[in-house]
Amino acid sequence: MIKLIITGGTIDKHYNELNGELSFPETHIPGMLKQARCTAEIDVQQLMLKDSLEMTEDDCEQIKKSCLASDAQQVIITHGSDTMVDTAKYLAQTIQEKTIVLVGAMIPYSIKQSDAMFNLGSAIIAVQLLPAGIYITMNGKVFDWDKVLKDKQAGEFRASDV
Amino acid sequence: MIKLIITGGTIDKHYNELNGELSFPETHIPGMLKQARCTAEIDVQQLMLKDSLEMTEDDCEQIKKSCLASDAQQVIITHGSDTMVDTAKYLAQTIQEKTIVLVGAMIPYSIKQSDAMFNLGSAIIAVQLLPAGIYITMNGKVFDWDKVLKDKQAGEFRASDV
Amino acid sequence: MIKLIITGGTIDKHYNELNGELSFPETHIPGMLKQARCTAEIDVQQLMLKDSLEMTEDDCEQIKKSCLASDAQQVIITHGSDTMVDTAKYLAQTIQEKTIVLVGAMIPYSIKQSDAMFNLGSAIIAVQLLPAGIYITMNGKVFDWDKVLKDKQAGEFRASDV
Amino acid sequence: MIKLIITGGTIDKHYNELNGELSFPETHIPGMLKQARCTAEIDVQQLMLKDSLEMTEDDCEQIKKSCLASDAQQVIITHGSDTMVDTAKYLAQTIQEKTIVLVGAMIPYSIKQSDAMFNLGSAIIAVQLLPAGIYITMNGKVFDWDKVLKDKQAGEFRASDV
Repeated sequence: MIKLIITGGTIDKHYNELNGELSFPETHIPGMLKQARCTAEIDVQQLMLKDSLEMTEDDCEQIKKSCLASDAQQVIITHGSDTMVDTAKYLAQTIQEKTIVLVGAMIPYSIKQSDAMFNLGSAIIAVQLLPAGIYITMNGKVFDWDKVLKDKQAGEFRASDV
Repeated sequence: MIKLIITGGTIDKHYNELNGELSFPETHIPGMLKQARCTAEIDVQQLMLKDSLEMTEDDCEQIKKSCLASDAQQVIITHGSDTMVDTAKYLAQTIQEKTIVLVGAMIPYSIKQSDAMFNLGSAIIAVQLLPAGIYITMNGKVFDWDKVLKDKQAGEFRASDV
Repeated sequence: MIKLIITGGTIDKHYNELNGELSFPETHIPGMLKQARCTAEIDVQQLMLKDSLEMTEDDCEQIKKSCLASDAQQVIITHGSDTMVDTAKYLAQTIQEKTIVLVGAMIPYSIKQSDAMFNLGSAIIAVQLLPAGIYITMNGKVFDWDKVLKDKQAGEFRASDV
Repeated sequence: MIKLIITGGTIDKHYNELNGELSFPETHIPGMLKQARCTAEIDVQQLMLKDSLEMTEDDCEQIKKSCLASDAQQVIITHGSDTMVDTAKYLAQTIQEKTIVLVGAMIPYSIKQSDAMFNLGSAIIAVQLLPAGIYITMNGKVFDWDKVLKDKQAGEFRASDV
């Protein structure tokens, strides 16, 4: 069984037609899993729906507790891309025994040319195949938590010079 | 470097508005990789564009030769779902040294509720993480070539009783 | 009030992932009106869900009866493109007092690059602005029932030489 | 021949993955007309790409001049919804001889559940059928420029109490 913790981020953003802004009326993850015809057993928990720039240390703490509280050995966390690496670092300080994969999207699922479905497929396979550790899957790659950065100018994740 | 061999199948089917049928005017895979913001190095080769029900042993032989001709250790084959297991078996007879992942879709990429992007993300990660062998990634799962069947009534792949 | 009679046709076709064919599990029209944020009052009736090549004279008779049975002066009929002109002619024999607009799509609504939403918007405005008569709206144009043909090679409707 | 003047607005907004905001890298209107299989003759002019809240009187003046400079009797203006009624009023002060239809969208064309294609179909038919005057087509309805308001709480246009 895979635990999937939803925290928000671009992947879940939705256009609000009343004010013209992108916000989080509700998560799209269960609908995405259905569209994927995913038959892997996944226990979805919506922990929060936040822009990752607004994430606090308290939020990281909550995410950590959710990871630890679950019986699942395999955990996926959907997360905004801007602080995904920070949350991965935070989790790496205390969790060694589980396989945890953080994932998000550069383009919301609700937008036509989104990378969200591709990234979710990446994460679901990665979490089943990787040994215990904290990872990020974006751009068709798997990154160790301590060897990755988000290149904000290119809008993509890449291996950091270690 | 990943080698990606395109053979057709539902993932690449396109609605032909002149006759109302689904056919293969051209592949969608390069567009899908762009939509995915995939930065993994992938060498795409369009070998054929066929419905998998029309695949012959000669086609399987061509696919095998393409796998072997490439320097790549990691090979993805996009393929129709109906005979995906058969082609996997065919390849398993002669190829032991490479990681080969077959993937397709239940719903064409050109259709709104498609599983194609999810499956492509699954395959790209699977091929990078799995040891040498022949595999199928569908429905958010990885299957060994000899432990999988397509359940045609449910429209999904599942582990076969070995 | 506008009466909208659903008869099927390409606009409502849906990909059946179990057999790989396009069929009619249910109509998409109410969902399309919601997506359109349409506030015009529309009374939707699903009369049948048929490929227009399979329409019989009895089906035309049923459509005619539905038009006449309604109190609405303005009637839209969603219809397959192949026999849309024939049904328009059939209705023109007996109905003079209502504004009737036939409409469909070259690409199903369920497919990404569909003309369905555009055509539905065309028909809903046309039926409100045109005098009594039988019309077809396709390709961004309004055609009188007796001055239109479907150019099957081009896949579009155009004015016939009268 | 129909003149179509592009001014921007929600219909043309695009998600910028580098900063997470909606902006105007380029117009989607020609792509929309192609998707619509529209064969009506349309002369498209991109005048500006602006959020309608940022439109100045100078912009309105430019739009007016574009309407007048064209030989076309039928003019469509794509426009942001927030000040669409204001621009319609501005044009009504000096243009009496042409049929001008303003149109936009509540949801950008680039987002999955957009009303953009429906509204564009509405406008293209309306401009061909209406007598000279200034109109707005939104929500499946045609409004005279002086009998319409945008209900910002409901996110829709409706007839104003005259």
